[in-house]
Amino acid sequence: MTDKNIVLAFSGGLDTSFCIPWLKERGWAVHTVFADTGGVDAEERAYIEARAAELGAASHVTVEGGPAIWDGFVKPFVMAGEGYQGQYPLLVSDRYLIVDAALKRAAEIGTRAIAHGCTGMGNDQVRFDLAVKAAGDYQIVAPIREIQKEHTQTRAYEQAYLEERGFEVRAKQKSYTINENLLGLTMSGGEIDRWEAPGEGARGWCAPRAEWPGQPLRVAITFKQGEAVALDGVVMPGAELLAKLNGLFAKYGVGRGLYTGDTTIGLKGRIIFEAPGLAALLTAHRALEEAVLTKHQNRFKPEVARKWVELVYEGFYNDPLKTDLEAFLASSQACVNGEVVLETQGGRVDAVAVRSPHLLNAKGATYAQSADWGVAEAEGFIRLYGMSSTLWAEINAKG
Amino acid sequence: MTDKNIVLAFSGGLDTSFCIPWLKERGWAVHTVFADTGGVDAEERAYIEARAAELGAASHVTVEGGPAIWDGFVKPFVMAGEGYQGQYPLLVSDRYLIVDAALKRAAEIGTRAIAHGCTGMGNDQVRFDLAVKAAGDYQIVAPIREIQKEHTQTRAYEQAYLEERGFEVRAKQKSYTINENLLGLTMSGGEIDRWEAPGEGARGWCAPRAEWPGQPLRVAITFKQGEAVALDGVVMPGAELLAKLNGLFAKYGVGRGLYTGDTTIGLKGRIIFEAPGLAALLTAHRALEEAVLTKHQNRFKPEVARKWVELVYEGFYNDPLKTDLEAFLASSQACVNGEVVLETQGGRVDAVAVRSPHLLNAKGATYAQSADWGVAEAEGFIRLYGMSSTLWAEINAKG
Amino acid sequence: MTDKNIVLAFSGGLDTSFCIPWLKERGWAVHTVFADTGGVDAEERAYIEARAAELGAASHVTVEGGPAIWDGFVKPFVMAGEGYQGQYPLLVSDRYLIVDAALKRAAEIGTRAIAHGCTGMGNDQVRFDLAVKAAGDYQIVAPIREIQKEHTQTRAYEQAYLEERGFEVRAKQKSYTINENLLGLTMSGGEIDRWEAPGEGARGWCAPRAEWPGQPLRVAITFKQGEAVALDGVVMPGAELLAKLNGLFAKYGVGRGLYTGDTTIGLKGRIIFEAPGLAALLTAHRALEEAVLTKHQNRFKPEVARKWVELVYEGFYNDPLKTDLEAFLASSQACVNGEVVLETQGGRVDAVAVRSPHLLNAKGATYAQSADWGVAEAEGFIRLYGMSSTLWAEINAKG
Amino acid sequence: MTDKNIVLAFSGGLDTSFCIPWLKERGWAVHTVFADTGGVDAEERAYIEARAAELGAASHVTVEGGPAIWDGFVKPFVMAGEGYQGQYPLLVSDRYLIVDAALKRAAEIGTRAIAHGCTGMGNDQVRFDLAVKAAGDYQIVAPIREIQKEHTQTRAYEQAYLEERGFEVRAKQKSYTINENLLGLTMSGGEIDRWEAPGEGARGWCAPRAEWPGQPLRVAITFKQGEAVALDGVVMPGAELLAKLNGLFAKYGVGRGLYTGDTTIGLKGRIIFEAPGLAALLTAHRALEEAVLTKHQNRFKPEVARKWVELVYEGFYNDPLKTDLEAFLASSQACVNGEVVLETQGGRVDAVAVRSPHLLNAKGATYAQSADWGVAEAEGFIRLYGMSSTLWAEINAKG
Repeated sequence: MTDKNIVLAFSGGLDTSFCIPWLKERGWAVHTVFADTGGVDAEERAYIEARAAELGAASHVTVEGGPAIWDGFVKPFVMAGEGYQGQYPLLVSDRYLIVDAALKRAAEIGTRAIAHGCTGMGNDQVRFDLAVKAAGDYQIVAPIREIQKEHTQTRAYEQAYLEERGFEVRAKQKSYTINENLLGLTMSGGEIDRWEAPGEGARGWCAPRAEWPGQPLRVAITFKQGEAVALDGVVMPGAELLAKLNGLFAKYGVGRGLYTGDTTIGLKGRIIFEAPGLAALLTAHRALEEAVLTKHQNRFKPEVARKWVELVYEGFYNDPLKTDLEAFLASSQACVNGEVVLETQGGRVDAVAVRSPHLLNAKGATYAQSADWGVAEAEGFIRLYGMSSTLWAEINAKG
Repeated sequence: MTDKNIVLAFSGGLDTSFCIPWLKERGWAVHTVFADTGGVDAEERAYIEARAAELGAASHVTVEGGPAIWDGFVKPFVMAGEGYQGQYPLLVSDRYLIVDAALKRAAEIGTRAIAHGCTGMGNDQVRFDLAVKAAGDYQIVAPIREIQKEHTQTRAYEQAYLEERGFEVRAKQKSYTINENLLGLTMSGGEIDRWEAPGEGARGWCAPRAEWPGQPLRVAITFKQGEAVALDGVVMPGAELLAKLNGLFAKYGVGRGLYTGDTTIGLKGRIIFEAPGLAALLTAHRALEEAVLTKHQNRFKPEVARKWVELVYEGFYNDPLKTDLEAFLASSQACVNGEVVLETQGGRVDAVAVRSPHLLNAKGATYAQSADWGVAEAEGFIRLYGMSSTLWAEINAKG
Repeated sequence: MTDKNIVLAFSGGLDTSFCIPWLKERGWAVHTVFADTGGVDAEERAYIEARAAELGAASHVTVEGGPAIWDGFVKPFVMAGEGYQGQYPLLVSDRYLIVDAALKRAAEIGTRAIAHGCTGMGNDQVRFDLAVKAAGDYQIVAPIREIQKEHTQTRAYEQAYLEERGFEVRAKQKSYTINENLLGLTMSGGEIDRWEAPGEGARGWCAPRAEWPGQPLRVAITFKQGEAVALDGVVMPGAELLAKLNGLFAKYGVGRGLYTGDTTIGLKGRIIFEAPGLAALLTAHRALEEAVLTKHQNRFKPEVARKWVELVYEGFYNDPLKTDLEAFLASSQACVNGEVVLETQGGRVDAVAVRSPHLLNAKGATYAQSADWGVAEAEGFIRLYGMSSTLWAEINAKG
Repeated sequence: MTDKNIVLAFSGGLDTSFCIPWLKERGWAVHTVFADTGGVDAEERAYIEARAAELGAASHVTVEGGPAIWDGFVKPFVMAGEGYQGQYPLLVSDRYLIVDAALKRAAEIGTRAIAHGCTGMGNDQVRFDLAVKAAGDYQIVAPIREIQKEHTQTRAYEQAYLEERGFEVRAKQKSYTINENLLGLTMSGGEIDRWEAPGEGARGWCAPRAEWPGQPLRVAITFKQGEAVALDGVVMPGAELLAKLNGLFAKYGVGRGLYTGDTTIGLKGRIIFEAPGLAALLTAHRALEEAVLTKHQNRFKPEVARKWVELVYEGFYNDPLKTDLEAFLASSQACVNGEVVLETQGGRVDAVAVRSPHLLNAKGATYAQSADWGVAEAEGFIRLYGMSSTLWAEINAKG
């Protein structure tokens, strides 16, 4: 029936593989969309496409997600300048771009039904559902959530379900739950969940010290209104620049972290994250901002950043407040132009040099109006600047 | 004249050495106080004492500053949990404890006159002056600031002044301005000021990668209500613990940073800082807090931290708001008890394990009330949690 | 069965009246608690007690809620100093004290089961449920929520259910939903819900202008560490003081408001509120704080207030963050001592005079250190205070 | 000498009258600018022009300040939505527009010298000086500040100086210092400064209750993207609308307040303010925002508002942060369209009705997706929404 088309955000993994026959058996023509946000190579892309066909998808498209993830997430995230709880670089934000790709596909097909493979226990379902609801009156079908109503061992159930129908299941016995895309990689599960020291195997892109190159690495990033536009002077698209930075800095073990987050559903979630490229971008951008923004800007901007990060983390990617915060961020970047030199010896990256026509350098000031001041002026400043506190001390003096 | 006693915060350097004869020639009996906050060894302490006598001090006392700096600064700073502008660990906060020591000495002597060696161009004068003003009606004499009213090359003037009077001046031709105490070390000047890459010589405590030990370092820190009380199970005073951490982590180059700050007087100040022990404490404490504080606490606490840090940075160490913020911080630490294992391979420190009876671990919950929930509950949560945003999208739908 | 005791928060209204037989028929021995938080007179109290007995309650207690509501809510609320969304004085906060009374009764009886009459559509259920969950592992039974699973016209169903069993139902045909306690009164429903102008009948305690007394009213409130302790010099318990202020200022129409709130469940809720006594207390307290707190305190305190108010509004009355915020608030009140004279001519109340030994009055300062300053000092202040902004303008000058 | 032109912001009062001959005698050709921001009538304008000529001004211009004050201050202020310290509607913000007018005049004349009549003791000098410094490399001459270096009784000195030169001085023996413009009126001095009850004479525009009209007043204000564009359906320029609202609501005593502010220079300043029109605009705008912004917007916007207000109050009218905050505010107003009906009986104004196509009214939602939910959904929401707090209570349970 042509009126029962549904678009499924498809990754080729067990959960979304299960969704195809399950949906078909409930009368849906399943149109799969794979939004490639960087976690896979060409071979895997081909596998995903073939897998969709094998499982009975009515159609399959692969969408190049890099540009969307750069514009929709990386740009404002780097402008904001901090991670969730001051730490985590929101590596699951590709979900929003996946939803966008699914919605676009739904419009092409002419359906208002969207399916996803999220469970009912996690945080991703919040991001998926709220992003779809923000787009209008869609029917959301979440097969895994449905089967959880009756089955507790859902992954075993899914595997049996597929095998019964003659579909092979790739054996992926993993110690950790791993998530990977252009932004970086997260690992959780096992001893990580138990707040114990991660084992040797808990390692993704970031090389351990034994493998770090002997020579330090230096790269220069050029920013234009807060956006990274060139690497060592070579202009390139953002997604390409981020991929290159991932490659360069992962070798030095830069951008790895381990933190416990307060998740949307209220539980603690401890994860390892590795985001070498984002770590490099944040470090460079921050060094530039520190040098070109006024004190007032530097003091207030973190409040905007923190709220933007919370909204994106919690599923409010489409709340109008996010738009308002981005208007602030865009305005704040007017002078964030220049070049930052990053250096790593391994483990950590530093912004060692900053070049910009906007450096708030008193010695470079045109009129030298601000350059020097007299001692009386300094004393006057201290006196009036401290007036309220000093007065309090005088009035409420103990002795 | 006995009624013209003045207490001088004395470090043995050029500026405060100059102050002694300059004050004496203006009729003051100069009582020097050296508050040892960790930047010097026994030999230097002896030198400082001898130097004060040589220059004509009426009396000299050396004050052990470690315990005061731990209680007055390190404890609340680590509880707060972040640096100035999210970076700088406020390494000049020993100034407040130095003022306290000077005020205590003034009370002993029975004078209301305090002298310090700050210039009229920097930020330390704000901290010194405001801290003294907060204590009551004191006369503040700042000889360097006074001579700046007439002389531009003040250091040369000071040197000539001392030499004319027969006092030798230690030749300390330095590339950088260095500041050092128990908390850490800062470097500025030269190419650092020009936003250029620091030279090889711009290095203090933190070893470069070539010198890092081959084996990773693991230490365990025990916290009791947010205060670090033991290292690898050995209970010790805070100042001693911090000194040990400085030694251990400096070898691995941990805690070094380079940032541009918005100073109190409104100029940009670019510095290198090295604070291995504070970096270790902050990392461990943060990991524990992430695991034991509620989501609401973790979200709001950074606002309190940021304000506390600003007040301390800007000279408002004695404003009653600081007391109020510390009441919040103390309350927030009720459950910050446990042990954190830190690990470094070099360059960066990670909190790899956390043990606490207060871990907000759903699986450890007594009544299992929170442990699992059904799919309908998850859907209900998403629906009501997103209600306001979804409603906005519906009402203001584009299509 | 003695082991099936349950405590029901009982108000005598339709919803909680229905709960008694409904619970009994499901095997519960129902112990009713009426926490008198000020909305009723002696006659109504007697009616409520008799009604509980008539409906088959196993026991009934009436708890004097005034002191608890003062200590648990009014004190910190007035210290915080602002309403929800800057407007609404949280008049439903008596819910938390009602839960406390029910929990205390449950402990006496030795049961871990609590019942309440909240619906599944409103915000009060969030407050009740979270307050009970915070106390431990209780079974929560919400009969109205249960019947809503099957019945849409719940009030008609409840009425029929009671009448079938021979219980009379007080006919209370009301245009508005009204809620009343010591704190004030709220009205919603009808045209208020539709963002239309409220009709003449939408009026509770606050007199319309035609009925305002001809003479202005002046009263003096004495504060001790932020708590109102006396009215016109007469020391009295807080709850009594609030009741008196309600009476005095309602006659002048003070404390009435109309606002649209973002409720916990995400919907907009438009209500009229009347809280004459709280309005008077907030006005007086604010005037005193403005005069005795430092600039730093006055700037930061609203952030703490806003968060406290949000937590209490949303059901997080027992989150440890609330405790932390109250530690801040208590500390901030150290100097909030003195007397404030309030005046109203009608419609609005003003704090016309403030007396306190802590007034931050430069002319009253002991050492006159802060009293006057020279022009050079003022110029120096302006120069350094504006440095960052001025420098930005110079560096980024247009012309 | 043609190269010694200076522009003086001139009001016709004693201070700026004194400035003309004083500047002339120091070799300046004085070009006066009177920026009419609403405090004067045609007769006074003519007097000011004649006075400038009489005192020897080289030229005089009167600038219509209404449109600039609306666009530059009133629009963003109402969008922000709150006063300084939650109270004071920044009535001295006309200073910034006066500086703009003076700078424009300076550009016409071709000079980089600006004079103003501020004292060295107040806060206005900060606003004037910083606003001029933000425009570039100007010479600022402040004659009153100059004479204060030698004279303490400056007003007497000014009067004698003018009389010696044959200029009459208008005798304005006033109990209070009064400031008046389109925005409103402030009064300070006398008993107000002493935190005592203001006398009968301390009254400006706002009628006392005895003079309020007998009938209530109702007016409707139309907003377009947050800007008030029409009154009772009649479209009119903002400055005219504000003037009309001032007239209408002053008769009912609306918009009067009495507060103690923390001034820029750190002293407490107690003032009476009367701003009937701004009070009406703020009330109407807030009622509309409460109904059309999302919960996330309503929660965060006050932080932006508070910072904007602080910057404007303290002289940072030209800091780029203000631009950034205004980008946020403008974005947030996209849906702030509609009509609000205001009503006053006297003393206070209420927004009694709100009409907008953007009302976030669940019943009006297109898809009714958000309209109703089941009990299980509500329970799920409460469970997950409260998860973190409940878990904390379980883990840290007392009993």
